[in-house]
Amino acid sequence: MSLTEIIGKIKPIDQEILDATQEHLNSLTKPLGSLGVLEDIGKQVAAIYGVFKPELTKKKVVIMAGDHGVAEEDVSCFPQEVTYQMVRNFINGGAGINVLARHAGAEIVCVDIGVKVDMHDLPDLVNKKVAYGTQNMTKGPAMTRSEAEQAIMVGVEIVKDLVEKEGITLVAPGDMGIANTTSSSAIIAALSGLSVDKVVGRGSGIDNERLKIKIKAIEKALTVNKPDKQDGLDILAKVGGLEIAGMTGVILGAAAYRIPVIIDGFNSTAAALIAATIAPLSRQYMIGSHLSAEPGHKYMLAYLELQPMLTMNLRLGEATGSALVMSMVDAAIKILREMATFEEAGVASGNS
Amino acid sequence: MSLTEIIGKIKPIDQEILDATQEHLNSLTKPLGSLGVLEDIGKQVAAIYGVFKPELTKKKVVIMAGDHGVAEEDVSCFPQEVTYQMVRNFINGGAGINVLARHAGAEIVCVDIGVKVDMHDLPDLVNKKVAYGTQNMTKGPAMTRSEAEQAIMVGVEIVKDLVEKEGITLVAPGDMGIANTTSSSAIIAALSGLSVDKVVGRGSGIDNERLKIKIKAIEKALTVNKPDKQDGLDILAKVGGLEIAGMTGVILGAAAYRIPVIIDGFNSTAAALIAATIAPLSRQYMIGSHLSAEPGHKYMLAYLELQPMLTMNLRLGEATGSALVMSMVDAAIKILREMATFEEAGVASGNS
Repeated sequence: MSLTEIIGKIKPIDQEILDATQEHLNSLTKPLGSLGVLEDIGKQVAAIYGVFKPELTKKKVVIMAGDHGVAEEDVSCFPQEVTYQMVRNFINGGAGINVLARHAGAEIVCVDIGVKVDMHDLPDLVNKKVAYGTQNMTKGPAMTRSEAEQAIMVGVEIVKDLVEKEGITLVAPGDMGIANTTSSSAIIAALSGLSVDKVVGRGSGIDNERLKIKIKAIEKALTVNKPDKQDGLDILAKVGGLEIAGMTGVILGAAAYRIPVIIDGFNSTAAALIAATIAPLSRQYMIGSHLSAEPGHKYMLAYLELQPMLTMNLRLGEATGSALVMSMVDAAIKILREMATFEEAGVASGNS
Repeated sequence: MSLTEIIGKIKPIDQEILDATQEHLNSLTKPLGSLGVLEDIGKQVAAIYGVFKPELTKKKVVIMAGDHGVAEEDVSCFPQEVTYQMVRNFINGGAGINVLARHAGAEIVCVDIGVKVDMHDLPDLVNKKVAYGTQNMTKGPAMTRSEAEQAIMVGVEIVKDLVEKEGITLVAPGDMGIANTTSSSAIIAALSGLSVDKVVGRGSGIDNERLKIKIKAIEKALTVNKPDKQDGLDILAKVGGLEIAGMTGVILGAAAYRIPVIIDGFNSTAAALIAATIAPLSRQYMIGSHLSAEPGHKYMLAYLELQPMLTMNLRLGEATGSALVMSMVDAAIKILREMATFEEAGVASGNS
C-alpha cells in the first residue's frame, strides 16, 4: 500500500448520520446545545462510524518512539538516552501514559520507529525501526523524503492491523523522543510562517539560556533546509522526526479506516498538522484533547480548527491528555444512547 | 448541630501531606510539573484526607431541587413545572446527570429541598422540603434568613450521613430549579459589585427579549432587597434559592467532614461563593470542574481562585461538569499511587 492510496481512501464523514444525531440531541431532556462539546463529539463520532447510536469505543494508545539528531545541540533538560529509558518504562507500565491509559481502559502499543539503540530485550516492543534516529536538522534534512514516507506508513499499517484484527474503534498517537518539541516548533513555524520565538516553548522545562539555544537551532534548521510550506511531507522530512511521522501515519490510518483519533499535545498536534496538509479530509476524524502549556500549541489548534476540551497545563506528551479525553468520548456516546427525550420523560420542552 | 458549629469544624488541609506529595510528584518519571492540574488535584486531595497516597474515591452526586418565585417574571425558556418533571427524570435515570454519574461510577441522591409541589409518589426522592419554592425576589426576600440556614443544614446533614454511614470520599452538588440562573446572577452581582448585564447569561437559552426581562428582574431584586455583600447568608436569603442553599450546605459539609467537593457550573459556583463567604476555609476543599458557557461564571471562578479543568461550553447544570471531572480526580490519585519514580525506572532525571 502506498501513501497515495491511503490518502485516496480518506472520505468525508457521514453527513446524514451527523444531521440525524443533531436532531436526536435536540430532543433530549436538556436545554438546546447545553452539553456543548460533548454533543459535538457525539455527532462527530457517530458520523465517523456511520452509525446512529454507536457502541462504546475499544481504545488503543500507539506510542511512537524515536531519537532526534538535533538533541546534540543541547536543546533539552534530558540526555538522549532518556528516550530508550522511557521506552523501557512504557513497557514496564510505570510511565504517566501507562497509568492514564489503564484508567481510560485503553491498551498501549509501543513502537520503536527510530530509537538510536536496539532494544531486543523488550519483547512487547514493536520493532519498526526506520533509522537509528534522525540527522541533526541544523546541518541538513532530518530525514530523506523516503524515510519520512516509510515512517508514516508504519503508523498507517499499525492502525490498519488494530482496526482489522483487533477491532479497535478509537486511537490516540503518543510520542517519546528527547528534543522533539524542537522539531514540532520548527514544523508549526514552517507551516504558519510565525516567528520561531512565538511558537517555541520550554519543552521539558529548559531555562532561558537553553531556550535561546533552542530558538537558534530551529531558526538555523529552517534556514538550512527551506521547507516548502505547501508540502507537508517536505516539512516533515526536513525538520520533523521519525516518531512525528509515525504519529502522522496513525492519524491518516485512522481517517482511512474510519475511526476517530484523539490529538494530544504539542508533538501529536505537529503530526496532525502534517496529516492535515497531506490529506485535508483527515481533519474530520480528529478530536482535540487539551490545550498544552507549550505556547505554540494554541496556534496549531487554531490552524486545525480543533477545540481543546481540557485546560490543565499538561505538557508531558505520551498521549496523556488524549487518555484523559477518552473517557469524554465514551461519555458523549452514552449521552446519545442513554439520555431520555422530552417525550419519553414527560418533560415540557422549552421556547426561547 | 448549628451552622456556627459546622463552620467551626472546618480546618485547613494537611500541609505536611501537601509538601510530601509535592516531593513525591517531583520524583516521578516526567518533566517537573508536566502533569499540571492533575498534580495540583492529587496534592489537594491527599492533603484533604491527610493521607500520603490515598485510595480511589467513593463518589456521590447530591442534586438539590427547588423552585423559584422569580420564575413568574418569565425569565426562563421552560415553564416552572419542569422542575418536578426533571426530578422525576432524575429518579427514573434518564437525565444528563444520570448518564454522566453512571459513567463516573457515582450514585445520585436527589433531594426535594423546595419544589413547589409534593412528589410523594417518588420513593427514592429524599424529602427535605424547607418551603414550597422561594418567594418572588423582585418583591421582597426570596427566603427568610432562618429558611436559608435551615436549607444549608439540609445539605450539611446529608453529607454528614453519606460520609459517616456510607463512607463516601468525594461529593458533587448539583442543581435543578427553573429560573435559578436568575438567582445565581443576582448572587455574583451582589458579591462582586459587577453590573448585572456583565454577569447575566442566557441560562436555558433565552432570546434577547427575555434577557432584558431577566436583567431587569435581577436589578429590581437587588434594589428591593439590598443584600449585604459582607454577609453571605443575607445574600443567599434575599436573592438565592433553596437548592442553592442546599448546595452551599453540601459544600460546607464536605469541608467540615474533610472530603473534596467538585464545583460544577453557574449555580453550583454561586453556592460555592456563599460557602466561601460564610466559611473562607471551605475554599481549600473545592475542586473546580468546568468553565460554563454562562458569561458570569468566569468572574465567580476568579473570585474563588478556582481553576476549571474543562472548557466544553457546558451549561446544563445538574453537576454534569463535575461528573466528568470525577474521573480526573481518580486519575490524579492513580498518578500518585502507580507512576514509577526516576530511580525505580532507571531513567536519568533532568536539569533545566
